[in-house]
Amino acid sequence: MITSTGNTKMRRIVNLERKAKLRYSEGVFIVEGLKMFLEAPKGLIEEVYVSEGFMAKNSPELFKNICYEMVSDEVFQKISDTQTPQGILCVMKMPSYSMKTLLEKKHKLFLLLEDLQDPGNLGTIFRSGEGAGVDGVIMTKNTVDIFNPKVIRSTMGSIYRVPFIITNDILKAMADLQANGVTVYAAHLKESMDYDLQDYTKPTAFLIGNEAAGLKQETADRADCYIKIPMKGQVESLNAAVASSVLLFEAAKQNK
Amino acid sequence: MITSTGNTKMRRIVNLERKAKLRYSEGVFIVEGLKMFLEAPKGLIEEVYVSEGFMAKNSPELFKNICYEMVSDEVFQKISDTQTPQGILCVMKMPSYSMKTLLEKKHKLFLLLEDLQDPGNLGTIFRSGEGAGVDGVIMTKNTVDIFNPKVIRSTMGSIYRVPFIITNDILKAMADLQANGVTVYAAHLKESMDYDLQDYTKPTAFLIGNEAAGLKQETADRADCYIKIPMKGQVESLNAAVASSVLLFEAAKQNK
Repeated sequence: MITSTGNTKMRRIVNLERKAKLRYSEGVFIVEGLKMFLEAPKGLIEEVYVSEGFMAKNSPELFKNICYEMVSDEVFQKISDTQTPQGILCVMKMPSYSMKTLLEKKHKLFLLLEDLQDPGNLGTIFRSGEGAGVDGVIMTKNTVDIFNPKVIRSTMGSIYRVPFIITNDILKAMADLQANGVTVYAAHLKESMDYDLQDYTKPTAFLIGNEAAGLKQETADRADCYIKIPMKGQVESLNAAVASSVLLFEAAKQNK
Repeated sequence: MITSTGNTKMRRIVNLERKAKLRYSEGVFIVEGLKMFLEAPKGLIEEVYVSEGFMAKNSPELFKNICYEMVSDEVFQKISDTQTPQGILCVMKMPSYSMKTLLEKKHKLFLLLEDLQDPGNLGTIFRSGEGAGVDGVIMTKNTVDIFNPKVIRSTMGSIYRVPFIITNDILKAMADLQANGVTVYAAHLKESMDYDLQDYTKPTAFLIGNEAAGLKQETADRADCYIKIPMKGQVESLNAAVASSVLLFEAAKQNK
C-alpha cells in the first residue's frame, strides 16, 4: 500500500492533474470517481488507484482483470482533485480521433468551439452534446483543456463517448466541414437569423465563441449563416453551455 | 479613504458575502463589478465602495447623486469575492416580491426550483430565465442562496430583473399556481412525455429538482404532467441549468 505523498507515482498523478503540458507529453490524463471508472473504455485504462476506505466498502469484483493499487486514505485525499474524494482514480490513455472518421458519420451534427475558457462550460457542452447526439466536437487549441480534471468531471462520462479534435487551425477545420457538405452556423448577435427557422436535418455544425469576447471576426466571416437565440429583457447573451445546448436540442428535435 | 481591513464597514462586507443568515437578518446583500453597479435599481443601493485604482480609471460622473466611499487597493482585494476585482462593490437592499404580483402577470411562465445546490446553475437559470421571458422563479428554502456572491455573478444582472420568491412550502406554491390556471410540468425521467409535444402557450410552470437527487416524489406527485428531454447515448440527465434553459426556450419559441 502507498502511504507517502512523496511516492513517485503519487507525485506524477498530482502533476498530471495540474499540468496540461505533462498530460500531452505523456499522452495520459486522470479521471476520478466510481462512475468514471466503470464507464471507462477498458483499453484506455493504464493505472487504477483506490483508497483503503473505498476497498472497505466495495467488492474486489469491480476489478475483474484490472490491476489496481491501494493508497492510504490520507494520501488519497492529497492526490484527489475533489474535496470529498470517492476513493478511486485512474490514469487513462488519451483517445485519438481524426477528422476523416468524424466526416464519415451518417447524420453529421458537429460543434466548433473557439477559445472557450470555463471548465464547467466545456464539460457541460460535452454532456449535452452526447445527449443531443452530436457526432464530434472540434475545439481550438486555446480552448480550456478537455483533460483538465474540472472539465472531465462536468462531462459526467461523455468525454469517453463524444469524439473530439483539438485544432491549431479552426478556419481549415471549417473549410473541411464545408467541403463535405456541412453548413456552419455561427452563434452571433449581429445580423442573425432566428435559430429555430433553420433546417438542421442537413449536415450541421454550430460555431460557438469565447464566453467574454464572442467569435473572432475572421472566424465568424467564414460561417455560412449567423443565427441567434432571440432574447427578452436586458440579456445580452446566454451562458455558452446553455446557448450550445439550446441549439443542439433544436437540431435533435428536428432530427427525431 | 478606508485603509484597514479591520474597519467595521469592511468587516461587515466580508461577513455579508460569507453568511446567508446575516444577509437575511439585515435584509441586504453584496454585488460586485461595474455592470452590477450600473444595472442596479437605484432605490436599492445602500452603500457603494470603490478602490483607488478604479477611481483612477473611471469618471466621478458615474456616481451622479450616489454617495460612495474610497478604499485602498489592498483592502479592496481583501473584501472582494473575486480574484481580480473590478474595484466597485455595493451593499444592496433585498428586493421583495409577492406571489400575488407574480400571478397578475399576463402571459405566465414560471420556474419552480427544488433544492438546487450549485451556485453557477442557479445564476445561469436566472440569466436564461430573463432571456426566455420568465415571469418569476419560485425556489425552496433549501435551494442555494440567491444572494450568494457566486450566484449573483452568474446571473449577469438578471437578479435585478427576474422576480423571485423563496418558499417554505413548495406544495402550497404549486397549488397556488394551479388554482390560478397554471399547468405545472415536472422535468422527470420516468413515464414522461416528450417536452416538445406540450402546449406552453397557456400558463406554464416548469418544476426542476436537485442536481443529484432529482425531484422529491411527493413534489413530483403534485405536478400536472411529467416531461423529459429525449436523450441519446448514455446520458442519464442534463445539467440542471441546461435542462431549465432548453424547456424555457421551447416555451419562448411557442410564444413568439
